[in-house]
Amino acid sequence: MPERIYNFSPGPATLPVDVLAQAAKDIVNFNDKGIGLIEMSHRSKEFMAVAEEAESLVRELLNIPSNYKILFLQGGASSQFAMVPMNLLGPGKKGSYLNTGTWAKKAIKEANIIASAHVAYSSEESTFNHVPGDSDYSVDSDSEYLYFVSNNTIYGTQFQSMPKSDKMLVCDMSSDIMSRPFDMNQFGLVFAGAQKNIGPAGGTLVIVRDDLLDRTPDTVPTMFRYNTHADKGSMFNTPPCFAIYIIGLVCKWLKKNGGVTAMEKINKEKAALLYQAIDSTDFYRGHAQKSSRSLMNVTFNLPTPELEARFVAEASAKGFDGLKGHRSIGGCRASIYNAFPQQGVVDLVDFMKEFEKNA
Amino acid sequence: MPERIYNFSPGPATLPVDVLAQAAKDIVNFNDKGIGLIEMSHRSKEFMAVAEEAESLVRELLNIPSNYKILFLQGGASSQFAMVPMNLLGPGKKGSYLNTGTWAKKAIKEANIIASAHVAYSSEESTFNHVPGDSDYSVDSDSEYLYFVSNNTIYGTQFQSMPKSDKMLVCDMSSDIMSRPFDMNQFGLVFAGAQKNIGPAGGTLVIVRDDLLDRTPDTVPTMFRYNTHADKGSMFNTPPCFAIYIIGLVCKWLKKNGGVTAMEKINKEKAALLYQAIDSTDFYRGHAQKSSRSLMNVTFNLPTPELEARFVAEASAKGFDGLKGHRSIGGCRASIYNAFPQQGVVDLVDFMKEFEKNA
Repeated sequence: MPERIYNFSPGPATLPVDVLAQAAKDIVNFNDKGIGLIEMSHRSKEFMAVAEEAESLVRELLNIPSNYKILFLQGGASSQFAMVPMNLLGPGKKGSYLNTGTWAKKAIKEANIIASAHVAYSSEESTFNHVPGDSDYSVDSDSEYLYFVSNNTIYGTQFQSMPKSDKMLVCDMSSDIMSRPFDMNQFGLVFAGAQKNIGPAGGTLVIVRDDLLDRTPDTVPTMFRYNTHADKGSMFNTPPCFAIYIIGLVCKWLKKNGGVTAMEKINKEKAALLYQAIDSTDFYRGHAQKSSRSLMNVTFNLPTPELEARFVAEASAKGFDGLKGHRSIGGCRASIYNAFPQQGVVDLVDFMKEFEKNA
Repeated sequence: MPERIYNFSPGPATLPVDVLAQAAKDIVNFNDKGIGLIEMSHRSKEFMAVAEEAESLVRELLNIPSNYKILFLQGGASSQFAMVPMNLLGPGKKGSYLNTGTWAKKAIKEANIIASAHVAYSSEESTFNHVPGDSDYSVDSDSEYLYFVSNNTIYGTQFQSMPKSDKMLVCDMSSDIMSRPFDMNQFGLVFAGAQKNIGPAGGTLVIVRDDLLDRTPDTVPTMFRYNTHADKGSMFNTPPCFAIYIIGLVCKWLKKNGGVTAMEKINKEKAALLYQAIDSTDFYRGHAQKSSRSLMNVTFNLPTPELEARFVAEASAKGFDGLKGHRSIGGCRASIYNAFPQQGVVDLVDFMKEFEKNA
C-alpha cells in the first residue's frame, strides 16, 4: 500500500487506517463465514451482533443513560432538521434555535415549515465567527427545546461548553460527536451524520430520551417517526448495515485509544498546534473569535485569495489534501477530527511556515 | 479466501464476487490516491466521477429517457412509501394501489396518512399467492397514478408483464430492478432499495419523470422533496457515497455480462430449474400461482413445518444459506437475484432431491 495522504476533508473525512483494513477483509469474507459483510441479511445473527455491539459501544463511550434510545437511521443530519420538529413539535408548537451557521439556518427553515422556530440568537451578521455565551440570549418560555449546533464545520466555531438552559437541549453534533465527553442528561435529543467523526456517509446516529417518543402527531409518516425505529431497535426496515458496521469499528478503535476523554486531550493538542501557528504571524488570520474556536475545523485566511489558492494547490501537491475553505466563506480550513493523525498537523504547521517564508 | 457459501438471502443479498474484491481494494486506497473511498469528500472530483458513472450506467442499462431524473437517496424503499404520496399526491388527491403483498400494504398505509389510496385490487385473501391480470381490476378515473410492486419478495410473486393503464405507473421495483428490461415511458416513477439486486443496504434508487418534480406541496420538508435532490444531482446533502459506488460497480458487472436482457435470460433459466424441481414431485409445493411466479424469489413448502425446519437446517450445514421463508408465511424461499450463481441453483436442486429421498 502506498503512503497515505493527509486528508483534511470536512466530511466524508479521514478514518482510522485499522478500521479500513478490517473493513476490506470483512467486505469480502465476514469472520471467515464465506459471505461478505454487505451481503448478509440484516436479521442474521451475525449482523444483529454487529449492530448490538455498535449500539452498546456508543452507549458506553458517551455514557448514555438507559432512558435514552440509540438509533441508527439514514438520510443524514439534513433529514433530522425536519424529523426533530416533526416529532418533538408538530403544528402550533415552538422550538428555540441558536443560529450559528449554515446548518443551524437550514434547521430553522425546516422547523418553520413544520411548526415554529424562535431564533434566540444569530451570529450571521459577523459571518458566523462566534457562538453565543449563555447570557447573550434568552429562550421563550413556551419553547419546547433549545436547539443548537455544537460545532460549526464551515465557520470553524464550537461551543466550548454546552449551553445552559432550563429547556431541554436538542443538538446537531454531526461534526464533534465522540470528540469530547458531554452530559446527555441535559439533552432531549442529539443527532449526528456519521461521516465526520464516526463513520461513512449514509449513517445517522440519533440519541433520544424515551419519554419524547410519544409526542409524534399521527400525521407523521411511519419512517419519519422516531418511535418506529426505537420500537424495533433500528430494524423496522433494512438499516444502513455498512455504516452501522463501520461506526462499530470506529467505536472499538476509540475505546482502544482511551475513549472520548483521551480524544479530547489529543484534539486540544492538535488544534493548539494550528492555532499557535496562526497566532504567531499576521500572514495567517483565524476566522473564528478565539473564545469560539473549534477543535475540529480550523478556519483561516491568507493575505489574498490568490495566495489562498496557491497555498491550497501547493499543499495538495505535498499530500495535504482538502484544505480549501467552504465555498460560502472561502479561505482555508483544516478539519482535524478524531482520526486525523497528530503528525499530519505537525507537518502542516511546518508547511505553513515554509509557505509564508516563500510567499 | 475460503469457499463462498451459496447465499439465498432475500436482501441484503449476494453480490458479484468481483465487486466485493474491487471494493476491498478501494476502501483502503481508492485508485492509488492514498485515500480510502469512504474517506473522500463527496464533492471531490474523484467521487463526483464515481457518482456520474453510476448514474450514467443506470441510465444506459435501463434505457432511461432523458426526461427522467435518476436519484440516489437514502431511507430505503420504506421511505418512498411516504415520499411518493408526499410529492405526487398531497392532501385531497388520490392514487390507486394494487395490494399484492406486505410492501404494497405498507405503501397503502402511508398514502392514506398523507392523501388517499384507492385499493384497486387485493390478493390478501389468498395469502398474496398471485398478482392480478389487467382485466381483474379498474383504476378510478380521478387517480393520479397506478401503484404496484413488480416483484413481491415475501410471497414469491411477480408481474410477468407490467400492468397496462392509461394512468402513469408508479412502481416499487426493489426486488427485481435490473433483472429484466422494461419501458420506462409507461412510468412516472420507479424506486428500488439497493440491497437486493443492485448494491448494499443504505442506497435507494429513484427514477422520476421531470415534469412531476413541480407537484410537491410547499408543506413538504426539504429533504423529502424529489426536486431538492433532482436540482443538485443527488448532492444536496452528503449522499450515501459507499452505496452509490457499489451500485456503479454492480452496473459495470451487469454491462460486462450482457446487461439486463442477458440477465433476464439467465434469471429465467435459474428459476426454471427450481420450479421444475418443485413441480416434479408432491413433496415440494410452490406458494405462488404458476402465472404469477417470481424469477427472483422462489417460495415453496414441504409436507410439514418440521420437515421445513430440517430442510433449512440441513441445507445451511451444506452451505445453502438463507432458505428460511419470511416469518409472515413460513415455508422456504430461495432468493436468486442477478448475482446468484447458476451453479448454486443446480446444487440446490440436487440437495432437494436428496433431501426428499431421505425424508
